[in-house]
Parts: sequence; structure tokens; C-alpha cells
Amino acid sequence: MNGMNSIDRLYAEVESKGVVCVGLDTDFSYLPQTAVDKTKTPGENIVAYNKALIEATKDAAACYKVQIAYYEALGLDGMTAYRETLAELRRQKLVAIADIKRGDIAKTAELYARAHFEGEFEADFVTLSPYMGLDSITPYLPYCKEKGKGVFCLVRTSNPGAKDFEYEKAADGRHFYDVVGDKLAALGKDFKAACGYSAVGMVIGGTHTEEAAEIRARYRDTMFLIPGYGAQGGKAEDIARYLNRGNGGVVNSSRAILLAYQKQPGMSFAEAARSETLRMREEIAHACQALQQ
Amino acid sequence: MNGMNSIDRLYAEVESKGVVCVGLDTDFSYLPQTAVDKTKTPGENIVAYNKALIEATKDAAACYKVQIAYYEALGLDGMTAYRETLAELRRQKLVAIADIKRGDIAKTAELYARAHFEGEFEADFVTLSPYMGLDSITPYLPYCKEKGKGVFCLVRTSNPGAKDFEYEKAADGRHFYDVVGDKLAALGKDFKAACGYSAVGMVIGGTHTEEAAEIRARYRDTMFLIPGYGAQGGKAEDIARYLNRGNGGVVNSSRAILLAYQKQPGMSFAEAARSETLRMREEIAHACQALQQ
Repeated sequence: MNGMNSIDRLYAEVESKGVVCVGLDTDFSYLPQTAVDKTKTPGENIVAYNKALIEATKDAAACYKVQIAYYEALGLDGMTAYRETLAELRRQKLVAIADIKRGDIAKTAELYARAHFEGEFEADFVTLSPYMGLDSITPYLPYCKEKGKGVFCLVRTSNPGAKDFEYEKAADGRHFYDVVGDKLAALGKDFKAACGYSAVGMVIGGTHTEEAAEIRARYRDTMFLIPGYGAQGGKAEDIARYLNRGNGGVVNSSRAILLAYQKQPGMSFAEAARSETLRMREEIAHACQALQQ
Repeated sequence: MNGMNSIDRLYAEVESKGVVCVGLDTDFSYLPQTAVDKTKTPGENIVAYNKALIEATKDAAACYKVQIAYYEALGLDGMTAYRETLAELRRQKLVAIADIKRGDIAKTAELYARAHFEGEFEADFVTLSPYMGLDSITPYLPYCKEKGKGVFCLVRTSNPGAKDFEYEKAADGRHFYDVVGDKLAALGKDFKAACGYSAVGMVIGGTHTEEAAEIRARYRDTMFLIPGYGAQGGKAEDIARYLNRGNGGVVNSSRAILLAYQKQPGMSFAEAARSETLRMREEIAHACQALQQ
């Protein structure tokens, strides 16, 4: 898979392995006691846990999303764990999304791009927050052109607070999230890859099904990173409407996979994570098939 | 100054030392050759440079803003420099703003709050991006109540891209930045400190003077973090309109201070930084006086 750009790699992974994005929001408190080595730091324990989880799920997941907040909260020990987790994903040639939601401009944005698209914290994709405008996105685009990287920009999320600003109506009647989405889609037109999708992706929450068909049609060539499955209320039937015949998006699940062992007393955490990943994958695949009939 | 909350401390610092916020956006390439010790890492050199700069400016600056992107871009060496820079500011009892512009929700936001309001990366204030809604801000508020911390939320910035989304008109005629600002001001009402300002501050670019009087009147009890002075075109007369009789805001300058030595051949980088900080402080103080006459 090397040499291909990230969006084509992600598309191919979804084609062969399904839509699950395993969220490595690994809080130290999530680790089962049996998996904790007390001679090691929390960060070192998290790396060992992540590696076992990656090994157990890698043939059933499209990609991994590493939520940097969980690592920042542990200081340098956590940032070391963040680096090691990304290094493991690179070593295994798996697609890594750095969930950093950075949003800044000019030289600051260039430095965030350098921080997360090269060096110790290198990932294939980053998530970005577009509040400040398109110049908070464009500094990442040279890495899309030259190194095949990709971005997922916040557009319409699945949290209750999305109503505060994203759902505000603009003077022309559009939701504010469509004002943002439309400009990002226009920006992404020049970054379309062989698979048909743009390297400029969007974060679209998997809830509010009533808007799914319109959003999917509006941003046909955009890959979606879809949070909200499970815990936030998104059902497989809802999620399917945000996909294009089972591709065109990846669906994140973090805690339901990381903590699956708590509901499967006979299984190791890695076996339970694998089992939940497979269950979720099949459930969404089934919903996609039902939708096409 | 210990024991007071951060917003009262910042207010008092502005009263006694003026409005300058020194931006420690310290790129390794900014260090003069004479200040580089080749036996040390870039991060270690940056810490030494920052310490000298802090020492030279601390009686003329209200606070320091550390832009984390510059440190993230250097990997773990940079994150170590970030930690050491904040430790130095704490040791000297100076007010530290962590310019992180994080914007996420729920447990992720709680972990960002923990990451930047306690532990190795502890600062007095953080900057936040409100795109996802008020639930991307509220997880930081327990730290405002219990530990006296504060936040500065992006509202109306000074970059060209601010026109893309912040200046969009809502259906009721307000700018989108006022939709955001109004909700943040309402949220901040419960967090007013003895000085009269709320622990929920706003980032308001120091350009577009035509809107300054309206914004200042609209958010009377809100402390502003004001970028855009100098490089982005904000003049002292413009900046003065965003302040309240010389308080109510801090005005950031990064490169003009960090690189002042390039225009002052006879001075060390620390002397030149001090000279530029004093010049900027006097220029803005003068503009504030002129405005009151």
C-alpha cells in the first residue's frame, strides 16, 4: 500500500476491511488490571495495550484514529506514548488519523502541519477545526499534494452543542455548517484522488438522520469521518445513509471497542475488541445492503 | 500574586506593567547564531533563549503567550521545551497563556483541560476554538471556578480568512462572530472576578477598527486577547479602541519582539526584545491617552 496517497489507501482499506475506524482514545483507567505492568509508566502501559489492540483488530478495521488529548493529559510520558502508537501504525502500514482538531493560521498552521505530517508525530490524516477560515486549512494542503496526506475538517458534529453555532441559519437560509461545508468542498475539488474522493474530508456526525441524504448528496466526492455511532445515539441504519454503498466514510468507535472486555468476561481485552469490531462492521455492512435494496 | 485567580492577576499586571503580551512563538531559526549552543538540542536552545527573553521583559510585559505549535513541530524535544518554558513562567509567578486553540467536547475536552490546567503543561489561561458549540468550552469551566484558571475563546480574528465564516451574516443580521460572542458572554456572566472581568475571555483581532467601538461596548466585561498588532496591520490607535482605558485586554506581539535584535545591531537579543516591548507599551499607552482626551 505504500506509495499510494492516504485517501486512496483509506478507500482501499474500507473496500477490503469495512468502515470501522478504531478510536485509540486510550485512557489509562480503561486498561484492565491484568494488563497493567506496575513497573512501567502509564504511557508505556498504554502503548503495550494499543499494540495488542491494533494486532487484534487490524484485519477488521479500516483505520485507527488517535485522539491526542488523552496523550497530552499525561504530559511527556503521554506524548511519548502518542509517538510510539503512531510509529506502530506506520510500521504495520495501517492508516492513522491524528485527531488533533487544530485550528490556526499562517506560520502557526504550517508548524502544526509539520508537527503532524512529518517527524515523530507523523500521521496520514489530521482533523482540523475551520472556525478561523480557509486560511486555517490551506497550510496543510501542500502536504496533500506532495506527501499524499489528507485532512478531515469539522463540519457538522454529533454533540448537543452542535446546535449552538453549526445549526445557526445564515442569511441565505443555509445552515452555518453548510456555509463551511460548501467552501471546503470547493477547496477540495483540486485534491481528488484516483478513488474519486478528495484529500479534503469532513467530520460529519452519524446522528440526525433526517439530514443524511442531503448531506451525502451535497458532498458526494468527500470522504466522511463519522463519529457518534453507539454512545452518541447513531444507529447502523443512520450511519449507512452517510455512506456511499459502504464506502465514502469511516465510522469511529472508541470506548465500545476499548472497553468491550467489560461485557465479555471470558475474553481478553484484545479478543473482546476484535469481537466488537467485527460485530460493528457486520452491523453497518448489513444496514448498507438493506439500504440498497 | 499567588492565591488570586488568573483574571485578577492579569488585570493587575496590565495596571502595573501595561498591555503587552509577549508571544513566545519561538522558532529555532529565530535564535541568533551567537545564542545557539551546538552541543544542545533545538529545544534546549529555545528554553535558554526564552528564559533570557522572559528575564529581559518581565517588568514591562503583562503576560506571556506560548504558541504550542512551534513546540509540537519539534516532537518530544519541543514538548520538553514547552514544559520548561511554562515551568519558568510559573517559577517567576508570571501570567502564562497557552495558545493551544483546542476545540473538542465531552471527555476529550476534559482531558485537554487536565493537560493544560494541571501537570507538566500547566498554564493560567488557554485559548479555545468554539466551533463545535458551548460544550467545547464548558469542560474548562470547573478549572475556572476551582483553580482560578481562565480561557480566551476565538470570536473575531484578524486573519484574511476571518471573512470566510466569522463575518458570515446570520438570519437575524448579526455577524456569525457575534452569534458566538453573545453566547460566550452569557456563559461568562457567572465567572466574573473582583476586577470586573470574566474568566471567559475572547480573542478579538486588533484590526477592522470600524467595528472596535461596537465590540468593546457589546462585551464590556470581557477581557480580550488581541492579536494583529504590527505584522497584521493593527496600529496603536486601532488597538486602543479595543481596550477600556488601557485595560480590558492584552496585545500580543511575537516576531517583532523575538526578532527585534535584527534591527538593533548593537544590542543583544534580550536587550532588543526589552527595547521593543517598552516601545510598544508606550505607543499603545499614548494612543489610549489620546483616545480619552
